[in-house]
Amino acid sequence: MILEKIDHIGIAVRDLESAVARYTFITGHPPEHFEEVAEQKVRVAMFSVGESRIELLQATSPDSPIAKFIDKRGEGLHHVCFKVPDLKAAFVRLINEDIEILPGAGGVGADGSRIAFLHPKSGNGVLIELVERA
Amino acid sequence: MILEKIDHIGIAVRDLESAVARYTFITGHPPEHFEEVAEQKVRVAMFSVGESRIELLQATSPDSPIAKFIDKRGEGLHHVCFKVPDLKAAFVRLINEDIEILPGAGGVGADGSRIAFLHPKSGNGVLIELVERA
Repeated sequence: MILEKIDHIGIAVRDLESAVARYTFITGHPPEHFEEVAEQKVRVAMFSVGESRIELLQATSPDSPIAKFIDKRGEGLHHVCFKVPDLKAAFVRLINEDIEILPGAGGVGADGSRIAFLHPKSGNGVLIELVERA
Repeated sequence: MILEKIDHIGIAVRDLESAVARYTFITGHPPEHFEEVAEQKVRVAMFSVGESRIELLQATSPDSPIAKFIDKRGEGLHHVCFKVPDLKAAFVRLINEDIEILPGAGGVGADGSRIAFLHPKSGNGVLIELVERA
């Protein structure tokens, strides 16, 4: 298995507090984790579901990718993230298949994980994130 | 845990064969399962990823919900389905929280599972499916 699991699904929301209240009802438990990701200009809340998580994302600036997404399409499913054992090996394999990786891939996040996004045209309109956990 | 896991994510695609080829590259393996769901007017292909699946959906008729979705928004993430231990208990809990369940919920599918969809306005723009497996 090259993709180990769905790491998380990302949901773009206008107001994190009310969305957290809603998903606390739906999942039956409060979020495990809150975080601000300055680089992406978002605040996030994470809910565990099985081996995966639900990530609610609220923009912290009008030029955040999440603000632009909501302006265009409204709230809703924004991306899906798959955990991979080796991000570099995934790159090599995907590039060989003409799958486009967005700029900035491979950077190390705050928790030491490495991430990359594939161009949505490479995923039939789906923004796919890959993560290699530290 | 009231939601046991992400059962699958549904992706609306124009052409199932080319999308299957693409997701065979991305996941690293061919789909485990093909099916036609006459009631929803779709053909689907399922790829396992960890405890979850990726479900590619192609409309079989212009009045399929998937055809309407693609007309409006293009290809992409269409819904997320969570596995629940008891669909009826989930109904009672969600209705108590004013979460709207779409008509037709609770029907028994071909494999004996029961499903329901929540109104997207109840999930911050996300079409949420719940499934109780037989």
